[in-house]
Amino acid sequence: MYLARIYVTLKSTVNDPQGLTVLSSLHRLGFENAGDVRVGKYLLVNVDETDRAKAERSVTEMCQKLLANPVIEEFRFDLEEVPAPTATA
Amino acid sequence: MYLARIYVTLKSTVNDPQGLTVLSSLHRLGFENAGDVRVGKYLLVNVDETDRAKAERSVTEMCQKLLANPVIEEFRFDLEEVPAPTATA
Repeated sequence: MYLARIYVTLKSTVNDPQGLTVLSSLHRLGFENAGDVRVGKYLLVNVDETDRAKAERSVTEMCQKLLANPVIEEFRFDLEEVPAPTATA
Repeated sequence: MYLARIYVTLKSTVNDPQGLTVLSSLHRLGFENAGDVRVGKYLLVNVDETDRAKAERSVTEMCQKLLANPVIEEFRFDLEEVPAPTATA
């Protein structure tokens, strides 16, 4: 069993209005030292595979098909082997 | 200058309806191996400080005051030293 930590971010060429809003809020709160802000998604997905390569292929496909929008977003992830949940979980 | 990579996640005791929706979509798409899904935020914030400790304090405060909801969310972050942007940036 693997835990995939997936980071989905807007491509650097794409405008990030949400990031701009957060930045102006930070400035309003007095954080003068805040510069560029980008907002992305962070997903934790448990993948029930024993083979790391299979898990990797699976997560890549999940990102391409559902979790990221390939037109404006890019993704990366890392995999951590975790113990399978117990029967009652 | 530091780049803060901030990960905001729901506390493990808090329900994640967005994660459940993603999970059911993954299953519908044929990803039978997808287990528990949690959806969080991933923020990249440039912090204009030369001192790492100051940058760290600043980002902690940003998270507590704006970026995370302490009632239902928890956050962690790492800091990477980056070159200051050039004058034209």
